[in-house]
Amino acid sequence: MSRYALLLEYDGSKFNGWQRQSGGPTIQATVEKALRTFTRQKHLQVTGSGRTDAGVHARGQVAHFECETLPENATPRLVKALNGLVPPSIAVRTAAQVHERFHARYDARLRRYHYYISTEPLALERNRRLVIYPSLDFERMNRACALLIGSQHFGAFCRTRSATVNRICSVARAQWEPETPSGYWRFVVEANRFLHGMVRALVGTLLEIGRGKRSVLDLKRILATQDRRESGVAAPAHGLVLEHVMYDIPIFGGND
Amino acid sequence: MSRYALLLEYDGSKFNGWQRQSGGPTIQATVEKALRTFTRQKHLQVTGSGRTDAGVHARGQVAHFECETLPENATPRLVKALNGLVPPSIAVRTAAQVHERFHARYDARLRRYHYYISTEPLALERNRRLVIYPSLDFERMNRACALLIGSQHFGAFCRTRSATVNRICSVARAQWEPETPSGYWRFVVEANRFLHGMVRALVGTLLEIGRGKRSVLDLKRILATQDRRESGVAAPAHGLVLEHVMYDIPIFGGND
Repeated sequence: MSRYALLLEYDGSKFNGWQRQSGGPTIQATVEKALRTFTRQKHLQVTGSGRTDAGVHARGQVAHFECETLPENATPRLVKALNGLVPPSIAVRTAAQVHERFHARYDARLRRYHYYISTEPLALERNRRLVIYPSLDFERMNRACALLIGSQHFGAFCRTRSATVNRICSVARAQWEPETPSGYWRFVVEANRFLHGMVRALVGTLLEIGRGKRSVLDLKRILATQDRRESGVAAPAHGLVLEHVMYDIPIFGGND
Repeated sequence: MSRYALLLEYDGSKFNGWQRQSGGPTIQATVEKALRTFTRQKHLQVTGSGRTDAGVHARGQVAHFECETLPENATPRLVKALNGLVPPSIAVRTAAQVHERFHARYDARLRRYHYYISTEPLALERNRRLVIYPSLDFERMNRACALLIGSQHFGAFCRTRSATVNRICSVARAQWEPETPSGYWRFVVEANRFLHGMVRALVGTLLEIGRGKRSVLDLKRILATQDRRESGVAAPAHGLVLEHVMYDIPIFGGND
């Protein structure tokens, strides 16, 4: 037996989230099915770096699985075969053999998400970018972002039904960046871990700050309450993309 | 009566091209219908800077129409109302009153198209980027592009059933540019005018050169034949985007 990792891109609008479950197709179950067909191993299981919610996209999801050792240099063939077996809403970008104890979730050191918005009407990217018409004060939003940096309790940004006990996250980066054409912006956030619904709750709250409905210092107060009812309405799923997962050692030979 | 111009973005995969016709929805007919509703003028007509084929997208299509003069500063309201009347696959980015003799097609000085490809599997942009697996020599493709610059006869890249007599185009720019992430490339081409199917025939031919199926100098020979049968298979419509149309005077106040 050997362990392999996959780098996955997907259009989350076609799935009921990452995690295998009874209602509707999931990315995990779809990739597992393809891998079981390819390897002819009925019980093969896929473990992702984390669960993305229904509607959330990924450009850099990492997942591992174990199967009977493939022939030397078989990963390009594996990638090609899997892309033929999964629907077009999933792309296997690359694959690599990894250490037998590598774990996509536990070994991940840093995750990066982008949340994409546009302050102008759009058509081409409408399935992966939120349109917001009220004018936003991005400078103000970035002053609030500065309060997110560091290790702190993010209970105010964690879905109430989440079973996660430890709600301390270390945020390494949080900022809104302009993109081209003008009117396009993205929120970039990096942390060692994210709680359930955390990025969307952060974005929703920052947008309320940007619209002047809340002050920058409100964010400090919200964080201190550790209470989800204090933060803003979660931003819609379709603007969110899991961009990158970082490990101590690059697993895909520099592509990651 | 006054004349107005619209800046339009659209997802061409939902339409049977720009031009009003009997088979299937077109962008022109859809925008006209919305404008007729808004202005209550039954016979209002919309003229675009050019016709995009079925499946071709636009981020910067320009169109004009004439109607009874709107109140001062009414264009933001017009934009908002139109975006409520057209399907989400069309976005009216902005609108402006223009000179009464402004013509979206005849006054256009330069059009810019991008053709988007990826040499790696993709999921998120699959509806607007062509995936090409054979390895491409972009340096070789760009040497061929240099032969396209200037005023010359592009009959070898014009659809045979086209009725256009003048087949001379002045190409100001033609090059392949890398994008991020790695594996993403775009072909940028600017000209005073484009013939029917010209960009897709150029891209198809350049891809054959990049794959080594034709030489760089073949392009020179193909141009000289003025015969469409000599050039390559047209690249699929979904990678092509009309990005920008330039006029002598910016019509949307610097946004263009």
